[in-house]
Amino acid sequence: MSMDIQVVVMAGGRGTRFWPLSRRTKPKQFLPIISSKTMVEETVERLMPLVPWAKVRTVANAQQTRLIRKLLPRIPARNLLVEPSGRNTAPSLMLATAAIYRENPEAAVIVLPSDHLITDTPVFLKQLESGAQAAVQERRLVTFGIRPTHPATGYGYIHVSAEPAAKHRGFPFYDVLEFKEKPDREQAKLFLASGGYYWNSGMFVWTPEVFAAELEAHAPDFHASWPKLLAALKKRNAAETARVFNGIPALSIDYALMEKAQAVLVCPSRFGWSDVGAWSSLLDVWKRDARGNAAKGDTIAVDSEGCLVFNPDKLTAVVGVKDLIIVNTGDALLVCRKDRDQQVKDVIAALTKGGRKRYL
Amino acid sequence: MSMDIQVVVMAGGRGTRFWPLSRRTKPKQFLPIISSKTMVEETVERLMPLVPWAKVRTVANAQQTRLIRKLLPRIPARNLLVEPSGRNTAPSLMLATAAIYRENPEAAVIVLPSDHLITDTPVFLKQLESGAQAAVQERRLVTFGIRPTHPATGYGYIHVSAEPAAKHRGFPFYDVLEFKEKPDREQAKLFLASGGYYWNSGMFVWTPEVFAAELEAHAPDFHASWPKLLAALKKRNAAETARVFNGIPALSIDYALMEKAQAVLVCPSRFGWSDVGAWSSLLDVWKRDARGNAAKGDTIAVDSEGCLVFNPDKLTAVVGVKDLIIVNTGDALLVCRKDRDQQVKDVIAALTKGGRKRYL
Repeated sequence: MSMDIQVVVMAGGRGTRFWPLSRRTKPKQFLPIISSKTMVEETVERLMPLVPWAKVRTVANAQQTRLIRKLLPRIPARNLLVEPSGRNTAPSLMLATAAIYRENPEAAVIVLPSDHLITDTPVFLKQLESGAQAAVQERRLVTFGIRPTHPATGYGYIHVSAEPAAKHRGFPFYDVLEFKEKPDREQAKLFLASGGYYWNSGMFVWTPEVFAAELEAHAPDFHASWPKLLAALKKRNAAETARVFNGIPALSIDYALMEKAQAVLVCPSRFGWSDVGAWSSLLDVWKRDARGNAAKGDTIAVDSEGCLVFNPDKLTAVVGVKDLIIVNTGDALLVCRKDRDQQVKDVIAALTKGGRKRYL
Repeated sequence: MSMDIQVVVMAGGRGTRFWPLSRRTKPKQFLPIISSKTMVEETVERLMPLVPWAKVRTVANAQQTRLIRKLLPRIPARNLLVEPSGRNTAPSLMLATAAIYRENPEAAVIVLPSDHLITDTPVFLKQLESGAQAAVQERRLVTFGIRPTHPATGYGYIHVSAEPAAKHRGFPFYDVLEFKEKPDREQAKLFLASGGYYWNSGMFVWTPEVFAAELEAHAPDFHASWPKLLAALKKRNAAETARVFNGIPALSIDYALMEKAQAVLVCPSRFGWSDVGAWSSLLDVWKRDARGNAAKGDTIAVDSEGCLVFNPDKLTAVVGVKDLIIVNTGDALLVCRKDRDQQVKDVIAALTKGGRKRYL
């Protein structure tokens, strides 16, 4: 059987955790923090052995879509889906899935975030292919679970069945027992100790047909807009599409559908993954020197360890310091203790309050 | 009696302790680290109530002299004395004193470093005037001693007589008992406890006549060049002046003359003084916020204390950090623990070794 694999890359995210490099108009997916390419480029280009350019769609706002068109000119312009407004992932994925439904209701739609780090691409692509086969043949919603490496409290967890429900191309697929909200540290430790818990990666596969059926069964508030969305797309009426889109509840796809649907299959990841949540996470990604310093840009470290330096255009010298994040951009400099990088949001708050929009 | 007060500002110093702001071609005296003006401008302009521009001379190398001419255009060009080579302070002060000797052997020559911070200028000028009077009337070499505020190990100390040898304009002048090299911490504590010890400030007053006589009596190796220097200056022969200058031993005036002369008088300072020895010393100079942070440039401090930030053209955000020196210039960034700022020299060494001259 030859599958019709289509990909939707969600590139509409916003975020400030990589300030001062990330700005309102340049969230993480548009930053070259993993390599010299932006994360959205990395995300799309690593798929190329699996799908042709014509089968890649992106969902993002208008301004972001202009950026994507420049970064990834080989994606056909009609595949760059524009969110009429920012309404979380459920409306955006309904829009993208409806667009593919009109082309082929039985296509395997792979949904990927645009700002995750993936290592071991060959395995990743094999797993995507197995997920596509599972979605088509099992007629279920499929998601990828990340094997937890530590009791993280920043992710949702998925508890799965002891035995696989299916196997595709050598990979096991488990039934979901329960979606778990972000746990506290103690709970997370229990999850890791008991086994069978995976991080919710935000990567999915479904066919438009199954997606619509699951919506109808478990998310009627959302399904109410589905036929209208199809009709508006058929008419190629952007204003009507926007009207329907803006009427869909602004919720995440996890909350709107995945956690309610019964028939979700989970494929545990065998590839390397990071959601690159904040500056300090890059210490696990960039090459480090003998004393644990990692740098983009010419850096001299004297008696210093565990520092992350992003200052690609200038010389940086660190002397006698430890566990610092140092980020120097064209108009702003951040120096932050490694374990306090979540507090970058306090800087954003101060800038917002002070009306210094040029730095936001 | 009306005195002929003349000033020599020593602006030839080199130094790397304010890297990356200071560079080979821009040592501390040419940096605007105290105010928006450079230190050499501050040094000369604070004298203006005391001496006319025509009585101010500077001694510096050719490149530095071009900078001084731009910064201080009101100093007559003939007063900008160029050191033919860098040979420490004794040859430079012989050159400057000889130039004044030709004009008036009995002038009061006030010698000042160009890179010290002085507060309470009215008192400073009164003390300079009293020192000038003492030098002329007592026919002695005069120096100013800084009252030590802590057992510093980075300065030479001067041990003075219990009772003043003279008084001028209300200020006491003490005989020198002994010049002390930089002491260790224990010795310095003893100096402070016993009293009568002052830091050697590098500020002097003498008449050219007395200077020449003391040279002759205590520094014959130096005095050997004195008549030749006068002759070369009289002929306005730069090549000959340079030849004589380059024949004078390259030593500091302290070592060459002050420590050997018997007749030195010391006037204890009543003005505020700092030699601004490294970045951390500016924490005592710049205005600090409630948590002890001091900044030049727009700075947001979140949960941070005791930091010194120099980043005048950009925004700086510090998060969760303590006691850091952060200096961002056009091409280089320094992040240094406050108590390690002496190690900036290790950065300079690494740059020199690595052949990265553009940053030196």
